[in-house]
Amino acid sequence: MGDATDNSGDIAVGRYLFERIKQLGVKSVFGVPGDYELVLLDMVPETGLTWRGSPNELNASYAADGYARTNGYSAFISTFGPGELSAYCGVGGSYTEYVPSVHIVGYPPSRAMNDHLIMHHSLGDGQFGMYHEMSKHISVATTVITSTLNAAAEIDRVLNAMIHYSRPVYIGLAVDIGPQKVSSAGLQTPLCLEQPKNDPELQEFVVKKIVDAVRKVDKAVVIVDGLAIRNRLVTETEALVKAAGVLYFTTFMSKGFTESLPNFGGVYGGAGSVPGVQNAIETADTVLWIGSYSSDFNTGEFSERVRSDVIIDFQRSTLQIGSKKHPLNFKEVLIAVTYALEAVPSRKPSTELVTWDANAWDHPEKPIKLTQDYLWPALGRYFRSKDLVIAETGTSSYGIPIANLKGKDLSLYNQTIYGSIGFATGASVGSFVAARESGDVNRPILITGEGSLQLTVQALSDLIRFELGATIFLVNNDGYTVERLIHGPEADYNKVPIWDYSKLGELFGPAQTKAGKFKYYNARTPDDLETILADTDFAEKNPANGTTQVVELFLDTLDQPVTIPLITKAIEEFNKVK
Amino acid sequence: MGDATDNSGDIAVGRYLFERIKQLGVKSVFGVPGDYELVLLDMVPETGLTWRGSPNELNASYAADGYARTNGYSAFISTFGPGELSAYCGVGGSYTEYVPSVHIVGYPPSRAMNDHLIMHHSLGDGQFGMYHEMSKHISVATTVITSTLNAAAEIDRVLNAMIHYSRPVYIGLAVDIGPQKVSSAGLQTPLCLEQPKNDPELQEFVVKKIVDAVRKVDKAVVIVDGLAIRNRLVTETEALVKAAGVLYFTTFMSKGFTESLPNFGGVYGGAGSVPGVQNAIETADTVLWIGSYSSDFNTGEFSERVRSDVIIDFQRSTLQIGSKKHPLNFKEVLIAVTYALEAVPSRKPSTELVTWDANAWDHPEKPIKLTQDYLWPALGRYFRSKDLVIAETGTSSYGIPIANLKGKDLSLYNQTIYGSIGFATGASVGSFVAARESGDVNRPILITGEGSLQLTVQALSDLIRFELGATIFLVNNDGYTVERLIHGPEADYNKVPIWDYSKLGELFGPAQTKAGKFKYYNARTPDDLETILADTDFAEKNPANGTTQVVELFLDTLDQPVTIPLITKAIEEFNKVK
Repeated sequence: MGDATDNSGDIAVGRYLFERIKQLGVKSVFGVPGDYELVLLDMVPETGLTWRGSPNELNASYAADGYARTNGYSAFISTFGPGELSAYCGVGGSYTEYVPSVHIVGYPPSRAMNDHLIMHHSLGDGQFGMYHEMSKHISVATTVITSTLNAAAEIDRVLNAMIHYSRPVYIGLAVDIGPQKVSSAGLQTPLCLEQPKNDPELQEFVVKKIVDAVRKVDKAVVIVDGLAIRNRLVTETEALVKAAGVLYFTTFMSKGFTESLPNFGGVYGGAGSVPGVQNAIETADTVLWIGSYSSDFNTGEFSERVRSDVIIDFQRSTLQIGSKKHPLNFKEVLIAVTYALEAVPSRKPSTELVTWDANAWDHPEKPIKLTQDYLWPALGRYFRSKDLVIAETGTSSYGIPIANLKGKDLSLYNQTIYGSIGFATGASVGSFVAARESGDVNRPILITGEGSLQLTVQALSDLIRFELGATIFLVNNDGYTVERLIHGPEADYNKVPIWDYSKLGELFGPAQTKAGKFKYYNARTPDDLETILADTDFAEKNPANGTTQVVELFLDTLDQPVTIPLITKAIEEFNKVK
Repeated sequence: MGDATDNSGDIAVGRYLFERIKQLGVKSVFGVPGDYELVLLDMVPETGLTWRGSPNELNASYAADGYARTNGYSAFISTFGPGELSAYCGVGGSYTEYVPSVHIVGYPPSRAMNDHLIMHHSLGDGQFGMYHEMSKHISVATTVITSTLNAAAEIDRVLNAMIHYSRPVYIGLAVDIGPQKVSSAGLQTPLCLEQPKNDPELQEFVVKKIVDAVRKVDKAVVIVDGLAIRNRLVTETEALVKAAGVLYFTTFMSKGFTESLPNFGGVYGGAGSVPGVQNAIETADTVLWIGSYSSDFNTGEFSERVRSDVIIDFQRSTLQIGSKKHPLNFKEVLIAVTYALEAVPSRKPSTELVTWDANAWDHPEKPIKLTQDYLWPALGRYFRSKDLVIAETGTSSYGIPIANLKGKDLSLYNQTIYGSIGFATGASVGSFVAARESGDVNRPILITGEGSLQLTVQALSDLIRFELGATIFLVNNDGYTVERLIHGPEADYNKVPIWDYSKLGELFGPAQTKAGKFKYYNARTPDDLETILADTDFAEKNPANGTTQVVELFLDTLDQPVTIPLITKAIEEFNKVK
């Protein structure tokens, strides 16, 4: 920790940081104020950024995650200690799911740290490095800036690492250093937005191998997985799928990727797949797996059975063929493979490839009471192109794969790998803010459960006051249903408190509620639901009118989408005592 | 990580853990369920403990902190990853403030960990040790149990460390190991509840020095500080203060310690003290400082000026005289010094010691609108013996020191050192549950601000449904007032969303609200407040009737208790750029 400073500069350290963040296309910064960063917060509007105070730090970290998923990058600010520790869960999720976000932490004055004073928010021992050490486990690069001498260089280093790895970073900034001046010259050098170029010879060699592997076998398939989406290569991947002309599939993590092409075979989740899908993939001679992320939740609890010797796996900075891993970046290879495949047409027309019903679960009988199996196809019909849909972990994440998205090119995500309940509600604030800023989203839709909503319910306050026009489908099945299905169906610990969700608006946004900008609906039957979804006020006027609308969906406690019994059996098996 | 197991035992590992926790007097366990600990949760009621599901993990960790402060020890359970990370802020506070609590973490199956599978809640890299590493920074002992071979020994080691250091510990338990059997024999050996005995010769030498230092000088004083309370030595400290017969003082952290003895001189907080106090302490020839914790917030931002050469500081396992630190435990020395002082009477009668008004701020003029300076003395008058009062960091923690507690032996705490806003509301659930279990508390009272309440508002749901009879004074001053006073009085970032707190009951506890078990009051003037406080229904019938009652107190945005302008000036000076 140095005291040395260089005040000959022309820009405050905090301004330098925010200018860099602005260069990344960030318009809103989330967070919770604290006295170690109040001076820094003055610089947010000075830089032309919008401050979005969050009701707590967990919500701020989730909002930042959601904002980055929709906008590309994000930033949020918390105080040293309690503030940052409250946000670590959200940062851990961003790390796991390759979401690039800057966590800015306001540190005590450098003098107090040098003198080892017992400052508030510390652990009371005169030490200041422990939280930084903790953050290293969930950040791809970190720094704590206590001097102007290396401030600009450190900011650039850490932000470049965030971009390079597409993962969160941590920038601590002593409260007294933020306003001190450094040179702004560095800002003229752009941050490194592109990955290093591939070796042309290696790439040519690999592309030829891939093209042969696709064209010279009987059954080649493509699986578009979650890391294709997280690496923001949706357009490139879609081009590849078109050029390949072979069967393609999505996964629980990539659900939302286009299902509109004739060669779409369905959603693959091991045991949780519609009939036909498993067989097609598991007997393939070549599997182009674009951005695989083979976690328990993304593989039907490891019930996928793809032959490892036929997999060609595209990752951010490697391309693996069988057991051989090549140092090649994703995007360039994707584009080159697409180009090469276009030159060698597929042997079978796309329209003849799918011999099963890729959306077999899209046609449930109409039950008397609303069921999960009825709900998700109904929501699928409700969705439209350019909708932005965020689904919570739980019955929502298992139900969404059932929805038929054919003809609907929308954005959809959940937190498949990390699976923190409460995430979706918090993330929706950030995503929906980014959606409004972009002007490129139709309807912002959150789907969550009542048990999950309770963790981060404060977010409602932001959804309402920012007038984001959010629609919230709230699945109320009286407790933690997925947990009940795994263990303890009747146990007390799977119950949650009973709330009256019709009052969310009156508590969290009284002014907007009085102005008619909060609406509550509920549905107990398929007809109830269809009436709401067909209502013009409900379906058409948002988000333009800025109304937040909650639809509480009452479902039986143990009712579950068809995917869950297929998969939870595997989880119970997996967790049980050997 | 071993697979080796020994199933010859007679008790499940989880049951062994809970039996140990029960031996410590714990009756309720807090937490949030997750599939890695569902089997473990079955054992909570089997052990005769009550499961208290929390609305999220931050609240669970705060509830555990509050429960331990009132009950002695506590335990809470979260899942691996998101759950535990969400709780780290609460655990960090417990660590800082010497609150002994067990954080039990449900880990994935040991087989999945051994095979480095990508499990949900992990960081997606097949690793499982990173959260444990993070927890080590905020825990005094940790273990992750993946085998029955060392399970009982590890549980005992870690719990004994918690007791010895009075700080939180971390016990991870693989989901498949929890139900496996170990020997229950260890349970017959009690956990080590006492500190090691002092060396009698060293103690005698030190006690004589202390008695001389108190009796052979003109001006000896005692400061009862926060760590006397946190070490649960209130009775012993009170005896010492009586025996010494010299002036004694409390601090911001120890506020709540008896003010009823004639030698009580006031609350010491450096620049934030009533006139007379600073001079008495800062000119003393001997200062017996019982459990000092000299943080910024506990010293009026380091504005205390006690001569270090006259301090005798009693700590948990050391006793420091001037610069010499002796390895002696607190409790034994306190008792021995008390005994020795009783044999040598003080030279001046206690009644003649206090020549100033120790409660100079207790007699404000009655303003037209409610003010902070009126509020805190009014609440002081409202308090009664055996009330349990929890005050939030912010204007509450700066205002409470003004309240006159003479004749009122109550329990009172805030989180002076760590200062995490949102803590008080979460902690109140745990403290109030412990209070009801003990049957030894009169009225459970929470004092918080609206900005702080928003962070952990879910706790209301538990306060209401457990029917704890809580009274909540909610200071609504339209934003983060303490932050405004430090920096940015008009800044957007110091605003918080406007909620309608009269709806808390309808949203979070509709059934109890319908049954009249939630009541909302508000006050804008001193008369409004006095009318509420004088109301028999309000003041007398709780907690017996189990009603949760909220009093919203409207105060001007920049209104502040008299202590704050005295201290914030020091904070701004301290934080500002040199």
